Amino acid sequence: MAFITEDFMLHGETAKVLYHEHGENMPIIDYHNHLDPRRIYEDPCYDNIAQVWLEGDHYKWRAMRAMGFPEKLISGRGDDIEKFQAWAQTVENCIGNPLYHWTHLELKRYFNVDKVLNKKNAAYIWDACNEKLRSREFSVRNLLRMQHVKMLCTTDDPADDLIWHKKLKEDGFDIDVLPSFRPGRALTIEAEDFCDYAHLLSEKTNENVSDLDGFLKALVKRLDYFAEAGCRVSDHSLDTDFYVPATKAQADAIYQKRLGGQAVSSTEGAMYRGFLLTVLGREYYKRDLVMQLHIGALRNTSSRMFACLGADGGFDSMGDFSYAASLAALLDVMDRTNELPKTVFYGLNPQDMDMLAAMAGNFQGNDKGIRGKIQLGSAWWFGDHKEGMLRQLKALSSNGLLPVFIGMLTDSRSFLSFPRHEYFRRILCDFTGNLVDLGEYPKDMEFLGEMTENICYYNCRAFLAANPG
Amino acid sequence: MAFITEDFMLHGETAKVLYHEHGENMPIIDYHNHLDPRRIYEDPCYDNIAQVWLEGDHYKWRAMRAMGFPEKLISGRGDDIEKFQAWAQTVENCIGNPLYHWTHLELKRYFNVDKVLNKKNAAYIWDACNEKLRSREFSVRNLLRMQHVKMLCTTDDPADDLIWHKKLKEDGFDIDVLPSFRPGRALTIEAEDFCDYAHLLSEKTNENVSDLDGFLKALVKRLDYFAEAGCRVSDHSLDTDFYVPATKAQADAIYQKRLGGQAVSSTEGAMYRGFLLTVLGREYYKRDLVMQLHIGALRNTSSRMFACLGADGGFDSMGDFSYAASLAALLDVMDRTNELPKTVFYGLNPQDMDMLAAMAGNFQGNDKGIRGKIQLGSAWWFGDHKEGMLRQLKALSSNGLLPVFIGMLTDSRSFLSFPRHEYFRRILCDFTGNLVDLGEYPKDMEFLGEMTENICYYNCRAFLAANPG
Amino acid sequence: MAFITEDFMLHGETAKVLYHEHGENMPIIDYHNHLDPRRIYEDPCYDNIAQVWLEGDHYKWRAMRAMGFPEKLISGRGDDIEKFQAWAQTVENCIGNPLYHWTHLELKRYFNVDKVLNKKNAAYIWDACNEKLRSREFSVRNLLRMQHVKMLCTTDDPADDLIWHKKLKEDGFDIDVLPSFRPGRALTIEAEDFCDYAHLLSEKTNENVSDLDGFLKALVKRLDYFAEAGCRVSDHSLDTDFYVPATKAQADAIYQKRLGGQAVSSTEGAMYRGFLLTVLGREYYKRDLVMQLHIGALRNTSSRMFACLGADGGFDSMGDFSYAASLAALLDVMDRTNELPKTVFYGLNPQDMDMLAAMAGNFQGNDKGIRGKIQLGSAWWFGDHKEGMLRQLKALSSNGLLPVFIGMLTDSRSFLSFPRHEYFRRILCDFTGNLVDLGEYPKDMEFLGEMTENICYYNCRAFLAANPG
Repeated sequence: MAFITEDFMLHGETAKVLYHEHGENMPIIDYHNHLDPRRIYEDPCYDNIAQVWLEGDHYKWRAMRAMGFPEKLISGRGDDIEKFQAWAQTVENCIGNPLYHWTHLELKRYFNVDKVLNKKNAAYIWDACNEKLRSREFSVRNLLRMQHVKMLCTTDDPADDLIWHKKLKEDGFDIDVLPSFRPGRALTIEAEDFCDYAHLLSEKTNENVSDLDGFLKALVKRLDYFAEAGCRVSDHSLDTDFYVPATKAQADAIYQKRLGGQAVSSTEGAMYRGFLLTVLGREYYKRDLVMQLHIGALRNTSSRMFACLGADGGFDSMGDFSYAASLAALLDVMDRTNELPKTVFYGLNPQDMDMLAAMAGNFQGNDKGIRGKIQLGSAWWFGDHKEGMLRQLKALSSNGLLPVFIGMLTDSRSFLSFPRHEYFRRILCDFTGNLVDLGEYPKDMEFLGEMTENICYYNCRAFLAANPG
Repeated sequence: MAFITEDFMLHGETAKVLYHEHGENMPIIDYHNHLDPRRIYEDPCYDNIAQVWLEGDHYKWRAMRAMGFPEKLISGRGDDIEKFQAWAQTVENCIGNPLYHWTHLELKRYFNVDKVLNKKNAAYIWDACNEKLRSREFSVRNLLRMQHVKMLCTTDDPADDLIWHKKLKEDGFDIDVLPSFRPGRALTIEAEDFCDYAHLLSEKTNENVSDLDGFLKALVKRLDYFAEAGCRVSDHSLDTDFYVPATKAQADAIYQKRLGGQAVSSTEGAMYRGFLLTVLGREYYKRDLVMQLHIGALRNTSSRMFACLGADGGFDSMGDFSYAASLAALLDVMDRTNELPKTVFYGLNPQDMDMLAAMAGNFQGNDKGIRGKIQLGSAWWFGDHKEGMLRQLKALSSNGLLPVFIGMLTDSRSFLSFPRHEYFRRILCDFTGNLVDLGEYPKDMEFLGEMTENICYYNCRAFLAANPG
Repeated sequence: MAFITEDFMLHGETAKVLYHEHGENMPIIDYHNHLDPRRIYEDPCYDNIAQVWLEGDHYKWRAMRAMGFPEKLISGRGDDIEKFQAWAQTVENCIGNPLYHWTHLELKRYFNVDKVLNKKNAAYIWDACNEKLRSREFSVRNLLRMQHVKMLCTTDDPADDLIWHKKLKEDGFDIDVLPSFRPGRALTIEAEDFCDYAHLLSEKTNENVSDLDGFLKALVKRLDYFAEAGCRVSDHSLDTDFYVPATKAQADAIYQKRLGGQAVSSTEGAMYRGFLLTVLGREYYKRDLVMQLHIGALRNTSSRMFACLGADGGFDSMGDFSYAASLAALLDVMDRTNELPKTVFYGLNPQDMDMLAAMAGNFQGNDKGIRGKIQLGSAWWFGDHKEGMLRQLKALSSNGLLPVFIGMLTDSRSFLSFPRHEYFRRILCDFTGNLVDLGEYPKDMEFLGEMTENICYYNCRAFLAANPG
């Protein structure tokens, strides 16, 4: 019997109707991911399933390391087929892990493979997938089309020229591939290469960045450049203290100190970062862009492996610092002058989920009729699994309004990851269907059907659109 | 079909029997709320359902803001009927939110309305409720009687004259309306108006408050005044650091510094607060009063809205500071001399639930035979929903003794909020019934029935009573 | 009807098969407990069930205190039978508490008693158990044999001579009773008796401990002594800050300062502790020993009761400090030189469970083919109940690989506590069976059966064995 059945993850009648009649066929807006726009433009085919699954997928790498496989078969120079076999053995052990479900949804949706991946079936699946992958029907763009993707937002540095996004637009590609503004290097004043980065922005914009004013002008020029290229969302990773009150003069002094080659203290870093975030937030507000805050990663924990592989090799983790007061203060500064943009919170540590749900409720008020102006974002990274999604859905519905939720995103580097939207939609429909079946909400299928479609698609479309304001 | 059925929230046979034969008909002791005793004394009727539902109900306001309604229809001067319509549209979107259940329990229990509230039914419900509300049968006192309330404890400042409580007593009102001693202004030494408050207490008591001794005498006089008026419980909101060890001399120096017009540091604030809490705790112990600790709110996050609406407008949130060591130290100081009063913990952030359950276990021992001397209080505020209640019930039963629990309170400002006791009782019976149906506890209906009645009523009655001691 | 049925805690067909055909009959390796090796050697019989259940069992004591029983009947000089009666009344109130299940599993497995313990049955059970206990069949060693214990690891101070472990070995006792190396007193530099302890180690090893080098040499000598006696695991309780970077010279200076009689600051304590932990970790790595980290207790909260009863009287609690960054840094220091030993994390506060699951994933990589080199340990102490076990199983499977898990341990002081392995196994099988029944994992009984046996026994056996490496 197939593992991925029609009613995978759907347990009640209501859930099945909601999914099959409403969630299933909605197009996808993937409003935050790490796809490479160049690959989309160049539209290659993959040679084998190991390439598309295992190159750079740190989720899978971490699982393979826990299986005791040598690094050669993980991030190293092992043969693709051997890596695939190692992965096949690993995935069988992913009971209760989203990798198991992702893998089999991908096999089913892209390759129509019903066999489960394990040691025994590895050879068959290797052949079946590779044959398809090498055909033009499985080019990168076609992989996106297969999943009814309508729009996707990549993650880009402000200094990026966005040439691939532009070429895709000129090309008339039928899926909107939009850049996102992620000024991480501008925010990380502690980084060794911060000054290089300031000079890079200066070059790109012809602004004199010797003081903070010039640096801000340069960033805003780049923001306008992004907006012209269709950018609708920004993104920020807040991994350490991100807000200590600072005047512009203080922030400027810290900036200039750093530019002069000196190190800044962690408090100075937080002062600078908090100031810059509020300035940027106001600029997003002006342009009606969305501000995404990804909070709480603990990065590059293994210095040995960082030296080998650099960032994103599967050695990032979950932090546990307290930040409710800082987050409230950061939002308040922008809200005070009515310049708080639409915002999405993503908390990496599930212990923060309820706090973030409550926090969102503090700043919902707006005079533009925006529903869910402050969003509790979908379960993220280490929380992106069934348990984590249910946690987010419960926190959101218990403390806010589920029907205004903008729904799922992949946050992925993989062109095969789009069935994660299906996974989310099934879990969503099972969650709401279950509430109905338990008698906790009336069986008003008109309302529930519309709500499902909104969460899967329409809410996000409206949220990303510029308000008439 | 009615949404609120006889077996709403009850899923197994055991749960149904426990609720209908034991929980359902117990009277209510609402041992912590924010009702206005003056309104109880004056016993008015409401003109319409918007007044009773929407005036000052920040839970509903937050939901309405998330729907994108303008503030005019929320806290502003909009027409009552328009506000009600906005609420009707909002509540439909409260799937998974306790507001949905509270609303429909209130419609059913007070008004016998079976229709669900939504845009379509709004006009009908508006008329049906308003007609009833205007009749004397729906006066404030009758609303309380309808729910079999036996005793309720309001929340009062030590400087309060308690005239309405006294008048109610003189009046022979059949429900005990008791004051609670909440010395929040005495604890918040950082507040701008702290010195004014000290002088107010001085006036009320003829004590010279120029040093801490005098201030304490004044407070204790007020405590005696409250006790004479029937006060059985005290209440404290601990939102920031609340304990750093301090001698009396240190606390006095901080007090006098503040009285002299100087600001105190956050450490000084915690030293003063910790000292005052232990002094007060000992006085509660002497009088066998209950000490309630509400821990972890993050208040007034939006300074823009605070400027418009003041406190309690729906801009308070959930903090995330660590306080296990402080709480242990605070309790230990009183316990050391065997002067720790009966205490109830309420943690706002659910991440603290298990820590608090464990903490309660440290200080249960007593030589008076008190069961559950230290209570893990019922789910509070942002946690006061089905998920939150289950979390509290699980934490309490996993780490302590569920049968000694003193149960539910509304913590509400609304005279229509008493069906929250019903909501809790249904969830409680479903939780315990489910344990039985899963074979995790024997089906000893005599024990379970008695336990249910105890948690719903008798435990609280015994806990609030003065011990013979 | 008996309370402990064949399918206690097992709800689906898959769960039942997994438990009865795979989990149930595996032998037990109890790789962390606090059993007294002397008692095992001396192999006495107990006189009555109160002795074996109530002497030193702080879980039960806490529950009895919550019932309001006087301390005399708890830790005091009350008659055994009166204590037992108090406990019988208490346990009836342990609905939802693991004490209820542990108690009845113990009654069933050791004494074949099917009655539930309550006031009514107390006398019958007292007699039934005592009669058996006094027979040689119920000697301490036979209690262990009854539960198919194959190996157990006690917890021992480095200065311990391990004479009872040696005698047991010489005696040819059929169960391996191995010591564990727990250098708690060496790590707690703040303790009053730290210098005494240093001198004790000096005596035991003839090392000059006047500087850190000598102290380390002494410790390593003791480690070798333990290893010779069969030690396979070490253990560390990390209750306060445990890592601040320090050079050897800094750590030595702090050590010598303390040895000179001066107090050290909390930062100095963390510097010393962090340094010592990394040195020890490297030594464990060399010997292929397991490093256990028990993180987050808050000890001796009641100074009044500590003065009466000393440590471990039921006044320890759950802390809530943040330690993700410290833990990452500690592990990184050892990992940097490829000297990180096999490690097991136990987090006391469930809020840390997901963080720890993610953290384990950072350091799994190894060139020895070890599966699950870094383990998210089984639910611990205040988390050691059904809810807590499910939380651990979900966190582990969602973020790692459940099939490589080394499973359960009792952490207990009681010779009757071994059915906790059964309790865990039932919950494990119900958890995985449920995943299958929900369609979240294929019904591959060969894989699942092997996985169950591995988690119950074989994984732990392999993990404790020295790797060929």
